Amino acid sequence: MSPRTKSSTPGAPTIVDVARAAGVSKGLVSLAVNDRPGVSDATRARVREAAEQLGWRPNLQARTLSTQTTYALGLVLRRDARIVAADPFYPAFMAGIESVLSTQGRVLVLSVVGDAEAEERAYRSLAADRRVDGVFLNDLRHGDDRVALLAELGMPGVLIGRLDHPGGLPAVVLDDRPGVVAAVHHLADLGHRELAYVAGDPALQHARTRRRAFEEAVAARGLTPTAVVDTDFTMAGGATATAALLEGRLRPTAVLYANDPMAVAGLGALQRAGVRVPDEVSVVGFDGTELAHHTWPALTTVRSDPEQWGAAAARTLLALTSTGSAPDVELAPAELVTARSTGPAPALRQAQGT
Amino acid sequence: MSPRTKSSTPGAPTIVDVARAAGVSKGLVSLAVNDRPGVSDATRARVREAAEQLGWRPNLQARTLSTQTTYALGLVLRRDARIVAADPFYPAFMAGIESVLSTQGRVLVLSVVGDAEAEERAYRSLAADRRVDGVFLNDLRHGDDRVALLAELGMPGVLIGRLDHPGGLPAVVLDDRPGVVAAVHHLADLGHRELAYVAGDPALQHARTRRRAFEEAVAARGLTPTAVVDTDFTMAGGATATAALLEGRLRPTAVLYANDPMAVAGLGALQRAGVRVPDEVSVVGFDGTELAHHTWPALTTVRSDPEQWGAAAARTLLALTSTGSAPDVELAPAELVTARSTGPAPALRQAQGT
Repeated sequence: MSPRTKSSTPGAPTIVDVARAAGVSKGLVSLAVNDRPGVSDATRARVREAAEQLGWRPNLQARTLSTQTTYALGLVLRRDARIVAADPFYPAFMAGIESVLSTQGRVLVLSVVGDAEAEERAYRSLAADRRVDGVFLNDLRHGDDRVALLAELGMPGVLIGRLDHPGGLPAVVLDDRPGVVAAVHHLADLGHRELAYVAGDPALQHARTRRRAFEEAVAARGLTPTAVVDTDFTMAGGATATAALLEGRLRPTAVLYANDPMAVAGLGALQRAGVRVPDEVSVVGFDGTELAHHTWPALTTVRSDPEQWGAAAARTLLALTSTGSAPDVELAPAELVTARSTGPAPALRQAQGT
Repeated sequence: MSPRTKSSTPGAPTIVDVARAAGVSKGLVSLAVNDRPGVSDATRARVREAAEQLGWRPNLQARTLSTQTTYALGLVLRRDARIVAADPFYPAFMAGIESVLSTQGRVLVLSVVGDAEAEERAYRSLAADRRVDGVFLNDLRHGDDRVALLAELGMPGVLIGRLDHPGGLPAVVLDDRPGVVAAVHHLADLGHRELAYVAGDPALQHARTRRRAFEEAVAARGLTPTAVVDTDFTMAGGATATAALLEGRLRPTAVLYANDPMAVAGLGALQRAGVRVPDEVSVVGFDGTELAHHTWPALTTVRSDPEQWGAAAARTLLALTSTGSAPDVELAPAELVTARSTGPAPALRQAQGT
């Protein structure tokens, strides 16, 4: 066993010292620092000030016993390690969560799992071990059975996105569709008639939503998609899909990708094949990552702000775990950010003599 | 308060059932499942099989009380959220950690903090709250005071990299230098005489090590660096440094970057300025990320395998927390992977008429 120091050392301040300094009972100190009802705002402030001045902090295990909370939230990522490493979405989303948790002395418990079975085991362990007060339900799937699982486990959860059957769980939603629709109109306005879409993993709700938004917007402009290719969201998938599009019967003049890493890989694949971007093919990403800003040409992309999403999700889950309920949150929808990777369709370019 | 179901439901298997099925005492079941000494391998296997068949798992709080372990490890990232989001190193490193923890029912507790004060608070909280059995000490700094902090807290830790004063902590080391040295020789062999280096944050030990390796290798070839620019490791920093290099008195014919995201941003900045890569300027990254593989031209880079590093670190920290000691681990050093972003120096190219 590793050595461990006791957390209470001689002379260290105790709850008794805080109670005395604040002029209240020990019980009231406990209620105040644990955000329980029955304490006036003025008293709560006085207790916190006394605790701060004395350098006293409530012991977690004591807090856990008295409040039945663990002061931790859980995130389970069921993703291939390779995808986690290449996709900037989750690091940004987690940074947003941490920006809220760190100000409240809370921590994030993270599990990365490879398959459905390991995922279920992870949620069951978090509940059985009382590791966390609640979890984020991310990468929502059609008919997601994690909603029923959380109900069985009595575990609070927040949906990251919208589900047809939310099972009473609050949802923190950022609507992808307006950004995708705006991208299609942007390209159609530039004279593009042959639009292709490199979609994500069709098992994921948000991948399906983006794909449907693309298809509906293309139809609304009286067009038919040149091609739609499902992928696994990886850069390799984006490159392979792009190579297939170049070999297709009808070559698209514009390709939209379901995330920025695939768009970057697609851009590379086009350039490798000697295709000029945007002169011959326009490219649109999704996520609005820093990466999109630094390629050449810089990527037109759909900005979704995963950091703000993570922060809103954390606030909602904290509200849910402390009060038992929380309203849905609707964030500002994804929006198109145009850059140099999109331009007039080749036909229009020719007509203009450019 | 949110609803919570009790973890023991009527009819659920108990430790008594497991003991009966395995034909051993309750105490022996506890020793067996907690990996304590005094149990033969055969008995341990029999107990585990009985537990598996009955669907029984030891309760974490009971385990924690009996073993004084939390079955969790901690990682504190002191980084700007923007950098965490753009740098593929940590997601890959964490995926490596998780690949080991997930097979052992252990979890990772993650804190992302903005500054030194919040960082110290994070380690103190992890210890005071008994959240974790040990921590990874990453992003090592010159004269890192976290070594003394862990000693004060009695918290086991593993160094991710080498420190001059390791304070008795085991180190899991992946030597960056051979890869950087190989990159310099690769460029010098291609006729480059004007080599520039876009370094990382000089406060970080690994950024200093890579920079020194570059400077020593350049000197070993009888050359002087054209320029060395410190940055904050961000893509924006890489782009700005590249723009500055292009405006310098002497333009480099090859630029090495301290990570792949900066190299990608540098490639973009060069192409934006109309500089052909590698015809006019060769580009070298560092990390060997998937991203480097998908740009055009694909990046010559130094591969360091952060996933393997995370897995080795997790195994070492688990050994340390369960036995009290663990040997240093030296992983295969970083190695050069050449691709299309490096080519003959312009002078040599001209002489060869290419």
